[in-house]
Amino acid sequence: MPTLSRVTTTAEEAMSIKYNTMVYDLKRQGKNVLVLSLGEAFFEIPLFSFKDLPFPGIYHYSHSRGIPELRTSLAKYFKESYDFPFDPEQEIIITAGSKAAIHMTFMSILDPGDEVIMQEPLWVSYPEQVKLCYGVPVQVPYNETVYDFEKYITKKTKAIVVNSPHNPTGYVYTKKELNHLLKLARKHDIWLLCDEAYSDFAEAGEFVSLGSIDKKKEHSIIFNSISKNYGISGWRLGYVISNKDVIYNVLKANQHLITCPATILEYYIAAHFLEILKITKPQIKQLLNKRMEISNYMEKIGLQRLPGGATFYFFVSINPSKLTSEEFCTKLLQERYISAVPGLGYGKSCDKFIRVSVGTATFEDNKRGLDNIKELIDITS
Amino acid sequence: MPTLSRVTTTAEEAMSIKYNTMVYDLKRQGKNVLVLSLGEAFFEIPLFSFKDLPFPGIYHYSHSRGIPELRTSLAKYFKESYDFPFDPEQEIIITAGSKAAIHMTFMSILDPGDEVIMQEPLWVSYPEQVKLCYGVPVQVPYNETVYDFEKYITKKTKAIVVNSPHNPTGYVYTKKELNHLLKLARKHDIWLLCDEAYSDFAEAGEFVSLGSIDKKKEHSIIFNSISKNYGISGWRLGYVISNKDVIYNVLKANQHLITCPATILEYYIAAHFLEILKITKPQIKQLLNKRMEISNYMEKIGLQRLPGGATFYFFVSINPSKLTSEEFCTKLLQERYISAVPGLGYGKSCDKFIRVSVGTATFEDNKRGLDNIKELIDITS
Repeated sequence: MPTLSRVTTTAEEAMSIKYNTMVYDLKRQGKNVLVLSLGEAFFEIPLFSFKDLPFPGIYHYSHSRGIPELRTSLAKYFKESYDFPFDPEQEIIITAGSKAAIHMTFMSILDPGDEVIMQEPLWVSYPEQVKLCYGVPVQVPYNETVYDFEKYITKKTKAIVVNSPHNPTGYVYTKKELNHLLKLARKHDIWLLCDEAYSDFAEAGEFVSLGSIDKKKEHSIIFNSISKNYGISGWRLGYVISNKDVIYNVLKANQHLITCPATILEYYIAAHFLEILKITKPQIKQLLNKRMEISNYMEKIGLQRLPGGATFYFFVSINPSKLTSEEFCTKLLQERYISAVPGLGYGKSCDKFIRVSVGTATFEDNKRGLDNIKELIDITS
Repeated sequence: MPTLSRVTTTAEEAMSIKYNTMVYDLKRQGKNVLVLSLGEAFFEIPLFSFKDLPFPGIYHYSHSRGIPELRTSLAKYFKESYDFPFDPEQEIIITAGSKAAIHMTFMSILDPGDEVIMQEPLWVSYPEQVKLCYGVPVQVPYNETVYDFEKYITKKTKAIVVNSPHNPTGYVYTKKELNHLLKLARKHDIWLLCDEAYSDFAEAGEFVSLGSIDKKKEHSIIFNSISKNYGISGWRLGYVISNKDVIYNVLKANQHLITCPATILEYYIAAHFLEILKITKPQIKQLLNKRMEISNYMEKIGLQRLPGGATFYFFVSINPSKLTSEEFCTKLLQERYISAVPGLGYGKSCDKFIRVSVGTATFEDNKRGLDNIKELIDITS
């Protein structure tokens, strides 16, 4: 067999996928697994009819920037909700999920050897996407802050990427922190990328979009996700917003990589844009309340976690357990049938943490999961 | 503004997209344009209900190889239709369109500087995708044959890519030709990639899948498209079939680039797999009959084209016109309101050709288009 590329051979699978596959196998064996490892929240949403959508347009390619109706609705929503105006004609492209949007953006800004600064814990695809573009991820340990970032900037630095609200901590970057990062970006002429896929999963007034403070988007590139905010992660609809030059390069990448997201789903979301939000928003609010209660419960039983109040994730410390995060999660799954994701998957500095996702289980089940985690920490200390 | 990457800044937009955008603008001005430039055929297909699909599974991520039901149906179909057996568990991955499948495959086999041999006329995304992976496309002029390919093989050659049935000529590679290419691949230890997206758009018995002659898939990687064969190009469902090691690397790329195609559409197609084919197949047959009649008509009025009997494309010679293919198509569009795609978009050796797609217009309209093309050739000679 001819050889395969180094870049994909050395690429790592997401740790969360590995553990979710183990869950799947246990379930097939008939085990009752408590799943705290999913990157999704489940909402109650109806399925509207597809019959009224533009026919036969739903079957064919759409504009490779995304259908105009949806771009216009998003522009209106961003202006009203996030004080973030953009031109729906030239400053946005709708893609097959925000993951693709981020990858094509790295492709659009990085030359080989360029460095991208990102802080742990981090979503595994950031460093892997950078490497797939022949760039170099520069990972800042979890216990530093954005005010420590400047020392990581070199002549090869091309971008800083942050994620707010943050997966897996739930942290929301403050306006002051974003302004500091933007100042760095301007001073060193580098890009600031902000992944805001969980923008609706924060308490009212807490979330600040990078787009509201860099309205010209001269240094900013913002990602967001229809899939996440609408509870339809499997529909693969995301987007990237920036100035028209960035978007034009992403557009060209998109034309050669994917063409467009599934047209029929673009039309569906455009037709029910506000209607679905009206259904999901109260459920997100409930989820945040549940998060708060769970956070209080963790406080009560003495489980430490990194600061954060948004999303449905907690990044929980397993100190003083002597186990590595992989050993811990494997034991938790194989002996107690509870799945969480090892912190190591979020960076080398995070091997004393695990990610717990409270998006799908009931409050009682989450409590049971946390009790077991606490117990396992205690008996392995 | 910080700089953008060289690789996307120098990437070319597909010529077809450029001309289709011009068509769109003319239509907005109220002009009645005869469109012979689309990369799609339009079929009459019903829209089945989405209500019976697995709920709420349709909203969530699917397995990143694609849902098992669809992989199994495809394996059965390939064995029966193309004498091409593969393991649905490990030898296929369903992606958001075959374009993404091809890109992620280039990513999975190419190291920077590796060369890929491909013959003109060619689909613009092949060379652009290779360049986006830091590989080097090596383009063979249109007037050579597969028996001339060996002289293009160097120490840096990593793959040969062919497209059968071929866009834009309609040519179907013979078993003898594929065997010759496979012999080259084995002799030089390189990959042979075959894009078979138009496999159903050929006369019965004419099409030979590469997978039927390299059953171990040790040197072969095969792409195909649900979007094309089902007349739903906008749904972005394609796949790649090869040995498990290739597929594993593509899987990792897919996990970091896209995750999965739109889950709800995977379930829809799995539920109506044979039903939709039963509806589209007779329409494809009609389309091939139309192609034959149009071919006869071109013969009658003296329009030359490259050999081919499949798909809904013709690659028509504009010799002895003195115009370049871009000048020709611009004139055709602006003076006669007929759109075709300049041959230059398919390679430097093809500037005396244009692509005519007969997939969407009526027979009478196609005739009128061809009469105008002939006339324009004559008056610009």
